[in-house]
Amino acid sequence: MRQIRIGLIGLGTVGSGVVRILRDQAALIDQQTGLSFKIVGAAVANLDRERAGDLQRIPLVAHVSELINDPSIDVIVEVMGQVKKAKALISAALKGGKHVVTANKDLIAQSGNELAQLAVDNHVMLRYEASVAGGIPILQTLRTVYTADPVNEIAGILNGTTNFILTQMDSQNWSYDQALQAARDKGFAESDPTNDVDGFDAAFKLGILTKIAFGLSVSQSQIEITGIRGIAVADVRAARTSGYELKLVAMAKRTSAGLQLSVAPMVIQEDRPLAKIQNENNAVWVKSANIGTALYVGPGAGQLPTGNSVVTDLVQVGKAIRHRDPAEPFALKRVADLPSIIPGHRSYWVLLASPDNDQLPANVKLLFGDVKVSQPDVIRGLDPHRTLASIEVRLDSPMPLETFVNLTQQLGDIRAAYPVLED
Amino acid sequence: MRQIRIGLIGLGTVGSGVVRILRDQAALIDQQTGLSFKIVGAAVANLDRERAGDLQRIPLVAHVSELINDPSIDVIVEVMGQVKKAKALISAALKGGKHVVTANKDLIAQSGNELAQLAVDNHVMLRYEASVAGGIPILQTLRTVYTADPVNEIAGILNGTTNFILTQMDSQNWSYDQALQAARDKGFAESDPTNDVDGFDAAFKLGILTKIAFGLSVSQSQIEITGIRGIAVADVRAARTSGYELKLVAMAKRTSAGLQLSVAPMVIQEDRPLAKIQNENNAVWVKSANIGTALYVGPGAGQLPTGNSVVTDLVQVGKAIRHRDPAEPFALKRVADLPSIIPGHRSYWVLLASPDNDQLPANVKLLFGDVKVSQPDVIRGLDPHRTLASIEVRLDSPMPLETFVNLTQQLGDIRAAYPVLED
Ligand SMILES: NC(=O)c1ccc[n+]([C@@H]2O[C@H](COP(=O)([O-])OP(=O)(O)OC[C@H]3O[C@@H](n4cnc5c(N)ncnc54)[C@H](OP(=O)(O)O)[C@@H]3O)[C@@H](O)[C@H]2O)c1
Ligand SMILES: NC(=O)c1ccc[n+]([C@@H]2O[C@H](COP(=O)([O-])OP(=O)(O)OC[C@H]3O[C@@H](n4cnc5c(N)ncnc54)[C@H](OP(=O)(O)O)[C@@H]3O)[C@@H](O)[C@H]2O)c1
Repeated sequence: MRQIRIGLIGLGTVGSGVVRILRDQAALIDQQTGLSFKIVGAAVANLDRERAGDLQRIPLVAHVSELINDPSIDVIVEVMGQVKKAKALISAALKGGKHVVTANKDLIAQSGNELAQLAVDNHVMLRYEASVAGGIPILQTLRTVYTADPVNEIAGILNGTTNFILTQMDSQNWSYDQALQAARDKGFAESDPTNDVDGFDAAFKLGILTKIAFGLSVSQSQIEITGIRGIAVADVRAARTSGYELKLVAMAKRTSAGLQLSVAPMVIQEDRPLAKIQNENNAVWVKSANIGTALYVGPGAGQLPTGNSVVTDLVQVGKAIRHRDPAEPFALKRVADLPSIIPGHRSYWVLLASPDNDQLPANVKLLFGDVKVSQPDVIRGLDPHRTLASIEVRLDSPMPLETFVNLTQQLGDIRAAYPVLED
Repeated sequence: MRQIRIGLIGLGTVGSGVVRILRDQAALIDQQTGLSFKIVGAAVANLDRERAGDLQRIPLVAHVSELINDPSIDVIVEVMGQVKKAKALISAALKGGKHVVTANKDLIAQSGNELAQLAVDNHVMLRYEASVAGGIPILQTLRTVYTADPVNEIAGILNGTTNFILTQMDSQNWSYDQALQAARDKGFAESDPTNDVDGFDAAFKLGILTKIAFGLSVSQSQIEITGIRGIAVADVRAARTSGYELKLVAMAKRTSAGLQLSVAPMVIQEDRPLAKIQNENNAVWVKSANIGTALYVGPGAGQLPTGNSVVTDLVQVGKAIRHRDPAEPFALKRVADLPSIIPGHRSYWVLLASPDNDQLPANVKLLFGDVKVSQPDVIRGLDPHRTLASIEVRLDSPMPLETFVNLTQQLGDIRAAYPVLED
């Protein structure tokens, strides 16, 4: 039985999950792989902090360099977070010939190319399954199942905190602030929720997915990012009344004009499985040439789900150590036919008070040309003074939301307008 | 660039998908793996049958033995179907030192153990991702992502034909016969639909999943199988009116009493993603110790989705040929703590005309002991002469549907009764 020796950096939510899974499932891992994993030592920020009983047996080191420089260690598991520090120590580990497993999405989104190249140069593996959609094996799936299947679109609910907030606003009729507080109480949202609610966390994950699925490196500034901060519960209810669910969707979509990249609140028709992803769950929806449409759903975070992804990576590293597999580049090399990145969406749902509902489709066509417009649905009860009309417009090419709204308000008083996640 | 040489047996739906993907995506496969795949020759039943233009370039052989005995061939792809013939030729190929990729679920469900052992003995790979849920990489996912994550339950919509029939009955208000005819017209159902509508196809797939997820070999006779033949559209509508979708669900569930194994029409609460899997799509829902709940959705069949799974297997074989990986046993070895297989379900939904709806929960408890019973929902309009009550009962331990119905009819006239897929 080959023993794989681990240096663990970080013993928080994810780190303790890794410790627990490696301990509780040691027999299963041995039975199935013939490998055993030993945590040689762990580094933490605060050596004096009280640890849970079962973590106390892990030897703590005073400085990460004790792990990075320990020649008996095969793999460094970086689960401490932070970009600059983590980058420095992962680089040192790779250069020292150690494999690295990390859950650090901010770092991989920003420096994945460079670190993956460093791994290739040093003939070691760098794996980061836990960095996108915690418990969903989406990176491994994209790397294997989509080897011969060109991806056309990825759309995901990639941030559990915002999905929890939107689900609670909908089901409890809570305001944004009430739902945010509930997310804090449950430990989903941090005291400063910016990264989640303003869409940055989802955008980091979208950057990594875009790299693996399309072979394209994008910087965060190339992604149109709209968060859900302060979103009105009335909007969530209006979407629901009109047959939609409002979700924060991250998407990358190949079109003839280029790649559409956005993180934005979008509505999803309620009879689609993606509309039913609730609370802290994540989901990734992939459209491709061979498979067509697939959906992968699971928890986006949490001690054991995220720990499980780290352990899955460790098992791959362990098998590679046994077989001496070569390192993998950051992206699958994809045929480079993606000239540009284009802003906006093609389909929009709009709820508005129009002087003449029957004329709406014709008026939309006067504005946008010969586009597809649904028959207006008349919605009563949302507004005490007037009936509203719900329509869906499918443009010929993507248009930013702002432009769409600016044009559409000529048709009436707009109550809500969102891009529609297309089939 | 290493060339992998293929002998293809069968050039029907799946075989032609494999040919097309290997041709259309050759550049992508080369870029990502450095491998190229060549179909050396193909065997078919009828040499004189007219083939589509792009298949005509594939050299046909007069007998499969020409492929099995060709020393230049690395891998046999068996996509002809049939159990006995396929078993003989796959055995011969494995004994001859050739890797084998197959989509043959009937064969793998029945002889997987034996064939996998033969592969291990001959140091070659046997892969069959396409045999369960065509385009969903569920076997690979179970083998990797669940290495250290004990599975507690698998529930799946594994048969596209029956899901298509149920979806159409619901959305079109069609009778079973009308929907079956529509499935035939679309090419989903064969002229003799027994295998699909009586649940046998789903049961074969469930047998394979049970082996991979639990390490337990089950024979088809150990699975309680109920199909959907002749199911009433009124049942589908009644489920819907009561907030459920009716689906043919295959499930394997670990309980303290043993493993529950069944293929049966079940209702699923409409707000769960699994309830929204429509038409010919498949889905597999996995509950496990670390990840918790995950759902994998995709097409269950079809030329390109199934062909893609075969090609994914071929790429794994190609990488193994390059690296000389060892063969894998049929099942992950799982800790053997599954003593027995138990029949029935624990939760039931029942719609009935009761003399006293308010007394229903109390009366259910008189019958079944202190079980969980929902408050009755009064359903009007389904029956012109009386109101109906919809309740959900959660028993302490599983009970066969028949027993449940026999007992419950003391409470009133039963309109519909189905097991409920539990959260
Ligand atoms: N939480 C999730 O569910 C989840 C999901 C996906 C990805 N991730 C990613 O996983 C990483 C870890 O997240 P987490 O939630 O586990 O964080 P956490 O609970 O805050 O734990 C961080 C750990 O790192 C240690 N640490 C901090 N600075 C350190 C330093 N300079 N040197 C050594 N140790 C240091 C901390 O030590 P002390 O214990 O002494 O404070 C703590 O043990 C992050 O990159 C995060 O984005 C998390
Ligand atoms: N169709 C799907 O979407 C799907 C999905 C999952 C799994 N599968 C499995 O994949 C397998 C193939 O299914 P399919 O739908 O592709 O079947 P199919 O369209 O009926 O094609 C069968 C092919 O095998 C050939 N064949 C039949 N008997 C043969 C023999 N004795 N020797 C050599 N060739 C023979 C046939 O030759 P001719 O062309 O001359 O008739 C035909 O090309 C089955 O095991 C099926 O269960 C299919």
